[in-house]
Amino acid sequence: MTSLKFHPTSDILTDSIVPANSSGNAIGGSFFAFTGMRKSFYEFPPNFTVTKATVKEFPALDGQSVSYALIKYPAASINPPHTHPRSAELLFVVDGILNVGFVDNTNKLYTQTLQLGDIFVFPKGMVHYQSNDDPKKPAAAIAAFCSANAGTVSVPLSVFATGIDDVVLAKAFKTDVATIKKLKAGLAWQA
Amino acid sequence: MTSLKFHPTSDILTDSIVPANSSGNAIGGSFFAFTGMRKSFYEFPPNFTVTKATVKEFPALDGQSVSYALIKYPAASINPPHTHPRSAELLFVVDGILNVGFVDNTNKLYTQTLQLGDIFVFPKGMVHYQSNDDPKKPAAAIAAFCSANAGTVSVPLSVFATGIDDVVLAKAFKTDVATIKKLKAGLAWQA
Amino acid sequence: MTSLKFHPTSDILTDSIVPANSSGNAIGGSFFAFTGMRKSFYEFPPNFTVTKATVKEFPALDGQSVSYALIKYPAASINPPHTHPRSAELLFVVDGILNVGFVDNTNKLYTQTLQLGDIFVFPKGMVHYQSNDDPKKPAAAIAAFCSANAGTVSVPLSVFATGIDDVVLAKAFKTDVATIKKLKAGLAWQA
Amino acid sequence: MTSLKFHPTSDILTDSIVPANSSGNAIGGSFFAFTGMRKSFYEFPPNFTVTKATVKEFPALDGQSVSYALIKYPAASINPPHTHPRSAELLFVVDGILNVGFVDNTNKLYTQTLQLGDIFVFPKGMVHYQSNDDPKKPAAAIAAFCSANAGTVSVPLSVFATGIDDVVLAKAFKTDVATIKKLKAGLAWQA
Amino acid sequence: MTSLKFHPTSDILTDSIVPANSSGNAIGGSFFAFTGMRKSFYEFPPNFTVTKATVKEFPALDGQSVSYALIKYPAASINPPHTHPRSAELLFVVDGILNVGFVDNTNKLYTQTLQLGDIFVFPKGMVHYQSNDDPKKPAAAIAAFCSANAGTVSVPLSVFATGIDDVVLAKAFKTDVATIKKLKAGLAWQA
Amino acid sequence: MTSLKFHPTSDILTDSIVPANSSGNAIGGSFFAFTGMRKSFYEFPPNFTVTKATVKEFPALDGQSVSYALIKYPAASINPPHTHPRSAELLFVVDGILNVGFVDNTNKLYTQTLQLGDIFVFPKGMVHYQSNDDPKKPAAAIAAFCSANAGTVSVPLSVFATGIDDVVLAKAFKTDVATIKKLKAGLAWQA
Repeated sequence: MTSLKFHPTSDILTDSIVPANSSGNAIGGSFFAFTGMRKSFYEFPPNFTVTKATVKEFPALDGQSVSYALIKYPAASINPPHTHPRSAELLFVVDGILNVGFVDNTNKLYTQTLQLGDIFVFPKGMVHYQSNDDPKKPAAAIAAFCSANAGTVSVPLSVFATGIDDVVLAKAFKTDVATIKKLKAGLAWQA
Repeated sequence: MTSLKFHPTSDILTDSIVPANSSGNAIGGSFFAFTGMRKSFYEFPPNFTVTKATVKEFPALDGQSVSYALIKYPAASINPPHTHPRSAELLFVVDGILNVGFVDNTNKLYTQTLQLGDIFVFPKGMVHYQSNDDPKKPAAAIAAFCSANAGTVSVPLSVFATGIDDVVLAKAFKTDVATIKKLKAGLAWQA
Repeated sequence: MTSLKFHPTSDILTDSIVPANSSGNAIGGSFFAFTGMRKSFYEFPPNFTVTKATVKEFPALDGQSVSYALIKYPAASINPPHTHPRSAELLFVVDGILNVGFVDNTNKLYTQTLQLGDIFVFPKGMVHYQSNDDPKKPAAAIAAFCSANAGTVSVPLSVFATGIDDVVLAKAFKTDVATIKKLKAGLAWQA
Repeated sequence: MTSLKFHPTSDILTDSIVPANSSGNAIGGSFFAFTGMRKSFYEFPPNFTVTKATVKEFPALDGQSVSYALIKYPAASINPPHTHPRSAELLFVVDGILNVGFVDNTNKLYTQTLQLGDIFVFPKGMVHYQSNDDPKKPAAAIAAFCSANAGTVSVPLSVFATGIDDVVLAKAFKTDVATIKKLKAGLAWQA
Repeated sequence: MTSLKFHPTSDILTDSIVPANSSGNAIGGSFFAFTGMRKSFYEFPPNFTVTKATVKEFPALDGQSVSYALIKYPAASINPPHTHPRSAELLFVVDGILNVGFVDNTNKLYTQTLQLGDIFVFPKGMVHYQSNDDPKKPAAAIAAFCSANAGTVSVPLSVFATGIDDVVLAKAFKTDVATIKKLKAGLAWQA
Repeated sequence: MTSLKFHPTSDILTDSIVPANSSGNAIGGSFFAFTGMRKSFYEFPPNFTVTKATVKEFPALDGQSVSYALIKYPAASINPPHTHPRSAELLFVVDGILNVGFVDNTNKLYTQTLQLGDIFVFPKGMVHYQSNDDPKKPAAAIAAFCSANAGTVSVPLSVFATGIDDVVLAKAFKTDVATIKKLKAGLAWQA
């Protein structure tokens, strides 16, 4: 839990918000630009990677209620099930083909295969994932959020890499403690 | 996905909202009362149960941005890890002792043991659980939400009881397909 | 009027907000727990009492838009007419029987008798009251609010214990100055 | 309680909202104009009067979160203590002199004498009043609200003209039932 | 771009917000009053003038989501086309006659002639103007906004007095660079 | 002015909102997908074009507060000065080089040259433009908005193609009526 404090997702009372330690007069066009994805835009990294442009990396987003992530999927890789606690996600496929899905709160699964140029909306707070099932080709997508910091809750890591009691998890997943221990070990949690 | 449509969590423009098919004049005090928990308040059910008073069960909540759940924990039972996509949760222990926890989005776990009369806040959208570890005594809690319908996303059911592809899940949880199939079987999903 | 400044009832941009003078790393589960009602939960105080868990008493509520009050009604006592300027109220009866009422802005009164386990919603900003009419038994209720600090405006105290000019009040209540002076004296205002 | 349903005080998704039974093409400039105060603007009525331009009288305000009232104070008249449940009020004196006051929720009274051209803000939900103490001259003010329908809760009428039980009120105002009956009679409530 | 930071247009968690360097106890009724228009209310200035009461001039508006402007139109003067980025505008004519208009985002113009006492709503973010076409008589209006600082974007100054490249503007307005240079010169921009 | 009515940019009370005439059960994954940009994603159209995915084209965005536009700039073309009344804009350059600028409400211009992969934020409601100054190469960008329908107000068309009176415009732009008539003619307005 960090003590970072940004401004709520709500109408601000100035055109924009500059950092407290900035001189307003010194702010120029570059303050409103983020170049941190320039390098990675056409790279094909060997692992699944997410590059974020939230208010943490790009302070000019404070009070503007919008942010981006650039997601790179190597061949045969996935973005594991997760939620964003503070925003819906609007995914725009810019390379390759993706199989995506989300689960609503009646536990119904919605899936779709997306081609280049397709857009998919993951409703706010729902568990969702993306999968690049192509064994050879990478894929890439841009994700937009209606919060300057939407947050990400990884289901595997939240549940199996955080020290929640084995007995609680065994009951929750209706399995035995040995299976929970095995899952925890795979996800790198050691008590 | 249902087509139920309620009014957003935001200031409404009338004192309250009565159902479209109601005559305003016929609305009396009973419209604003919910008696659906009267029966269950002092019952000790054999299974973990959640009784809700959201806008679905209690239409007078429409536009008022608040709701309740009454949660009953038999001895040695848990409320499995879950999130509420549209609200923080404020838990008030009204019987027994509960061990509770939530995980923030840096995957840090926060736990606490709560006595009767204690209150705990689960921040909006975070994975959380409660556990009654007493082998003989039940426990009970009231939960308040700042949405007339906060929603609940069960982590075990969303992930393992919805038909998400076994290979996607095996990669996500860094385990083998056999373990995924075992978990799915326990949580009652059959392809 | 204090200079306390909390964060608005709106989506924040972090999971939670820790006090400015806290080290984020030092925050543990106890920060999210409030034990101030543990002692009073089963007490039967001789006078009408309200114990609050708002952002003032429980800082972890900042940005989470939810709070509680625990209300104890001795036999034959009332909670005088009041409003909450920043939230609807959802009252949950946890002991005894309560007669409740609120007035909408057409000056229509809505009343109801509530039993243990019953819930009643007082719409945002409306004048409301509760009365324990039993001559011998106490009553108790939990109230939930969709603001971390809903505020309370007591009608008797706001109007008759604050030095508003006697002539203004006599005109407002269509009575004589002597009656106003008598009411002020009873409510402890001396000019 | 009416069944009128307007759109929340929040960003809408169109420039404006036209009534459901209107043809969009038929909407012209007159839809956005309200002429209902034209007649009363320079009148000096014998009684205290409030003319409103809320979404009820002026449908084009739906979704725009703003409204007006025109308030006329004959010599030696008052606007009795009241609250607006859904907005702060910004009062602009356009004729005469007004003594105004509001009470915060610590029951501290704030008063001021306003001249022509002065503006006063009554914070959201606080009990407030205005008084024209001049024995001969009228006064007038415009009030702006940040809701298309801010609502008004009259303290004298909500409390003493609505049938709240005499015993409850006697306890609330720490007086006797006879005084309550007298106040009720003056404010036109007969059981 | 200044570094002024006010509180968002959203429910605050205190009755009002006093400046950080104020002692809460020292705050009295005058803090909630703005007298800066007292002098100008009945003046007829030789030029078009706007006097504002936003959170910048009147700090008590912070968190209250409402503000005013007083607009004076000499004979044969205009308020040039502009937008308010953070609020609708509700114009109340208090002197003279005004011709007003706004353009929706299908580029349809809505116009109206307003008399004394008339109100007109300019929907949020739309380009609008007012014109006093009377060759001899002044006019005046009060404008209310549902933001403590609605902002004003002047179309002529934003576009032609800010150094936007001449070629860009010539293309945008489908004209030649010479016409752009002429417009810029009239609006006082010199490269 | 159309009568289209969508849900406000605010927390909804269901996971998503399906059209009123839909059967909830019939909704599948394709409802949440938008394929209308698939065709145009790698096209290089001869003219400047904007393809939108707002709630009008993509109904699943209702209540999700997010939308996209795909913008194609042929060589030596511009996106003329405009504002979005209901959102900030987050521009992501996916092809070529763009010179961009916006003007704050003190009429200060902020400009920047963006390369492929760069992001720029245009604060809510501010006048902004983009220009592809390359004489031979096209450019393309994705724009994200924190509203399901942000709206677009074109400055040239709003002002010069809508029938605003020539005299009003001549005064506003401090020029002569002949220049106004010339600009109007170029932008295709004939009285």
